[in-house]
Amino acid sequence: MADDLCRVDFEPVGKRVDVPAGTTLLEAARAAGVELASVCGGHGHCGRCRLAVLAGAISGQTEADRSFLSASELAAGQRLACQARLDSDVRVHVPRASLVTSQRLQVAGAAADVAVDPAVRGWQAEVTAPSLTDHRADFDRVAAALETEHGPALGTAAGLAAGPAVLRQLSPLGRRTGWRLTAYVRGNEVVGFAAPGRAPIGLAVDLGTTKIAGYLADLETGAELAAAGVMNPQIAYGEDVIARLAHAVREPGGAGQLATAVRAAIAGLAGELAAEAGVARDQIAAACVVGNTAMHHLLLGLPVRQLAVSPFVPATARPLDVPASDLDLDLAPGAFVRLPPCVSGFVGADHVAMVLAAGLDQADHVAIGLDIGTNTEIALSRHGTLTSASCASGPAFEGAHIRHGMRAADGAIEGVRLARTEGGAGGAADGAVNSAANSGGDLRVAELRVVGGGKPVGICGSGIVDAIAELHRTGLLNWRGRLVRDAPGVRQGRDGPEVLLAPAAETGNGTDIVVTQGDVDEIQLAKGAIAAAVRALVTATGTDDNEVAEVVVAGAFGTYLNLASALDIGLLPRFPRATYRQVGNAAGAGARAMLLSAAQGDRARRIAEQIGYVELTAFPGFQRLFAHAMQFDEPQTHSTGR
Amino acid sequence: MADDLCRVDFEPVGKRVDVPAGTTLLEAARAAGVELASVCGGHGHCGRCRLAVLAGAISGQTEADRSFLSASELAAGQRLACQARLDSDVRVHVPRASLVTSQRLQVAGAAADVAVDPAVRGWQAEVTAPSLTDHRADFDRVAAALETEHGPALGTAAGLAAGPAVLRQLSPLGRRTGWRLTAYVRGNEVVGFAAPGRAPIGLAVDLGTTKIAGYLADLETGAELAAAGVMNPQIAYGEDVIARLAHAVREPGGAGQLATAVRAAIAGLAGELAAEAGVARDQIAAACVVGNTAMHHLLLGLPVRQLAVSPFVPATARPLDVPASDLDLDLAPGAFVRLPPCVSGFVGADHVAMVLAAGLDQADHVAIGLDIGTNTEIALSRHGTLTSASCASGPAFEGAHIRHGMRAADGAIEGVRLARTEGGAGGAADGAVNSAANSGGDLRVAELRVVGGGKPVGICGSGIVDAIAELHRTGLLNWRGRLVRDAPGVRQGRDGPEVLLAPAAETGNGTDIVVTQGDVDEIQLAKGAIAAAVRALVTATGTDDNEVAEVVVAGAFGTYLNLASALDIGLLPRFPRATYRQVGNAAGAGARAMLLSAAQGDRARRIAEQIGYVELTAFPGFQRLFAHAMQFDEPQTHSTGR
Repeated sequence: MADDLCRVDFEPVGKRVDVPAGTTLLEAARAAGVELASVCGGHGHCGRCRLAVLAGAISGQTEADRSFLSASELAAGQRLACQARLDSDVRVHVPRASLVTSQRLQVAGAAADVAVDPAVRGWQAEVTAPSLTDHRADFDRVAAALETEHGPALGTAAGLAAGPAVLRQLSPLGRRTGWRLTAYVRGNEVVGFAAPGRAPIGLAVDLGTTKIAGYLADLETGAELAAAGVMNPQIAYGEDVIARLAHAVREPGGAGQLATAVRAAIAGLAGELAAEAGVARDQIAAACVVGNTAMHHLLLGLPVRQLAVSPFVPATARPLDVPASDLDLDLAPGAFVRLPPCVSGFVGADHVAMVLAAGLDQADHVAIGLDIGTNTEIALSRHGTLTSASCASGPAFEGAHIRHGMRAADGAIEGVRLARTEGGAGGAADGAVNSAANSGGDLRVAELRVVGGGKPVGICGSGIVDAIAELHRTGLLNWRGRLVRDAPGVRQGRDGPEVLLAPAAETGNGTDIVVTQGDVDEIQLAKGAIAAAVRALVTATGTDDNEVAEVVVAGAFGTYLNLASALDIGLLPRFPRATYRQVGNAAGAGARAMLLSAAQGDRARRIAEQIGYVELTAFPGFQRLFAHAMQFDEPQTHSTGR
Repeated sequence: MADDLCRVDFEPVGKRVDVPAGTTLLEAARAAGVELASVCGGHGHCGRCRLAVLAGAISGQTEADRSFLSASELAAGQRLACQARLDSDVRVHVPRASLVTSQRLQVAGAAADVAVDPAVRGWQAEVTAPSLTDHRADFDRVAAALETEHGPALGTAAGLAAGPAVLRQLSPLGRRTGWRLTAYVRGNEVVGFAAPGRAPIGLAVDLGTTKIAGYLADLETGAELAAAGVMNPQIAYGEDVIARLAHAVREPGGAGQLATAVRAAIAGLAGELAAEAGVARDQIAAACVVGNTAMHHLLLGLPVRQLAVSPFVPATARPLDVPASDLDLDLAPGAFVRLPPCVSGFVGADHVAMVLAAGLDQADHVAIGLDIGTNTEIALSRHGTLTSASCASGPAFEGAHIRHGMRAADGAIEGVRLARTEGGAGGAADGAVNSAANSGGDLRVAELRVVGGGKPVGICGSGIVDAIAELHRTGLLNWRGRLVRDAPGVRQGRDGPEVLLAPAAETGNGTDIVVTQGDVDEIQLAKGAIAAAVRALVTATGTDDNEVAEVVVAGAFGTYLNLASALDIGLLPRFPRATYRQVGNAAGAGARAMLLSAAQGDRARRIAEQIGYVELTAFPGFQRLFAHAMQFDEPQTHSTGR
């Protein structure tokens, strides 16, 4: 029986796969290319991979099923995909909230404003065809022409060179074009040939744990030709960095799976971008990829065992230039991928790129930059002197560990305003000091903004921050982060107090969407970690709050975040004289800058070398800072303006 | 039936393979790893792949079978392997003369006498382990230590770098050795790590069309640690360069087959050498491979279509440094293979290496160097100014196209002396001018030297040259290269006159071993081509015969060649004031020199750049020179001393 194949039909996505009996539905989904959410990597610890079995037989319920699914959900056929093993052909329904494919991707970011001076340039060559009286080798005749015509500009005292893959391209191409060619030259190396007049193109990639943003730029003009994003398919092996490192370390061939998956995604993205820009993909003569240190290592297939355990050291933090062919990217045959330097195990090249794009290294004041995610990296610049820290802020902002959490895909609640109706009973408040809890009438949801505009099916990171800020503002959440029991609008749910945001009748999936005490706890931990990290960095650098002139919030979550709400709940500290700036995908913008300008690459190296890293776990008094930052202050503003 | 598997047992080699019915015995032999000779690449044109079917059913005789095998041979079950398709399980006997595996390999050559200054050097590093207070990346801590300690010697202003494969090696190795390491550094790149005290080792390879000679050298001392040779397994796809280029161009995937085969052979040779030298194969931190232009291109997978047709241009002739991992050689993870420059489509890096090892570029007199093979390359140095030519000399010296020809393996006749018995009838000589034909008695074989000392089974290149010189000396061969019909010792054979060297009763395979008129014709063509090429080169450079002070004969055939015989038959021209020197495998010696010394690599580049190439097909009067060089002069010496 175990060797029989079972067919799995995934609805409504319409994908199908045949896999051996005994395969889990999660594995089947991976095989079918259905990107099921899985924070824990398939160990039954996150409850994100739920789906409904419409027909067919699967293995029995497990502890994990019962801990994440209610009796009625189980009765309705809902199961965790990682727990369900196939006993027959099955047909399953994948709810949108369990999919990771349709998430809104933040690719925009401040456009790079740099002098175009890339590492790779295009040169035109026109030579005579070989003959009995001139039987120089194909490459030698082209190289000699380039050296003669452009010698000083090429700066190649050693003479041009080209590797086998580029030579494989030249001999047929030269004969096809009548020996009129464009040569893409990097240092003294020809990295590709193309038909005459084809400019070299560069690919910049911000390789995130969740999403991959890619950009094509014309390396002659600096013009952006295309931008697009895809999900990082490594999500199928675990949604966060820790789960993926564990997969790479523990599973035989796991590191290879992760490398293959992300390389294929970048290669696919390059193809998509090239098609959009109307260029040949072998015109892509240079690339620059930034990511956190784990993404960097998993892409390159570097060892990660030492990255996964204290003291969490990278295999290398120095910049690398790796042949694109080694990463199976199918660009120009000799193209290199620049991997800018990392700083530490938890502060990667994406942070360096963010610092560069935000200009923190060149700031003439005190500025703080944050890139908020599962891991949050923070840099503090005192007149250009840089100190960084990083903290685990958990996947709550990505919608994980939140009862109705989801990514910022269609159907996600991304903004909430609460109001009170007049009248209604104000019950006794569980020792709450917040007077608002006892005033006014019933809670009313005044506004609910949903990604895509349809009925809500869940709540994403910016939505939960907004909701919690509103709960706090309206007095339903006290300073310790507890929902005020018996306050109007706070009801007793399955796991404790909860607040209803959208009743089942008004949601897209027929389920009440609520914010639970557990959800608040998750956000409280995350915002406490971030605020404490900022506080520690300010302290460690001897900075006075009044000195901080600028706070730069980068990244996708940071872009959609309601800044007022973030300040209200203490996710971002209030600095009296600071301006707060949301800069979008600064890491991607930094990657583009490095792609377009070798000088910016050098700048990145200087940034990485001079960044001082503060290890928070070793920072004196950090636990006290953290405990304090977990609190919710008295609301300082009741503005609900966006 | 066509999908059924047939089992083939090869005797006496004891190999077995299962292949689909309809497969040829030649293909089956390739699959089984039985290295059957095949000059033509399996097209029934060379007759070298003969074997005997002992049991089982094969397809019917073809034209090719009948043209190469006598009726009695066919009746005894002999067939050409390339013509015979399997109809059932079969058992075949492979005669030694059809095998290419046991050939004597020339690996010795003048030892390189160069100052040791290799491109890769080993440096010791000892660093502290990472900790919470020092969480620098693994590579960064090692690189920083090397830079601090050896900075000026490393000459790495840019800082050391290492690619992913080397980084993969470092993290586990450092933890295993307690962070005491040897780093192999090339320029600013670490190409490998090893346990402390392990010297970097270099691999030099002379990649011949027929055989591959490999050498290991200690890159610190220059000492040769091991030397060995293997057959070039590409022979299974065609014995000469032309057949292999045709295979690469015509057969889908053919180029890949050829590249894979030769890469595997070099990788195997590296392993064998490392075992012999008692070093770890990842200590091999640098390699240098020389070969003719076709071997160079097929190894690298470069395009060869343009190399196979006039004007026969290489894809590149410039020196290349290619990652060993791209060639699947399994050396130190970041090791590079140096491919020294070629000169033209017919003058490869092996010629450059020969010129270098023989010192022709530094000669203060006029010297000529020849590397005789299927293709013969010749260099003439006038006080260091180099001019080269190449000519197709055919595979006759390798034993091909010779009735009983074989390679210099056990059982090959490699030396012959003829004498006349007193008395016997001297018949009328076909208009022969050579008086010896009419004098003396019957022919007697005075001496027969056989490789390995056993009974003869065939005749190799040096043997056939010797035999023809003796036939000429004893008057059985006239100036036009015709065997003198009716002279004593000349009998009428199947295809015309022939001379018996060993009767069936005295041979290892029960067959008369003869030299035929056809054999003489083949050698006549080859020696004519070589002598004419030398003559053309002398003329083209305005050299007077009296100026030539030295003739250097390199290569395996040249080593075993009887110089006196070669001069007698006009294979080598006689220069009145020249000394003749046999130098063994000069190409291999040149490769070793370049491996041990970066300066020698630069010298090779200068040699390749300054060699003037004379295209003989375009040389005025070459046909006349060739016609003249085909003649056999009056014998100038009757010495038979060796």
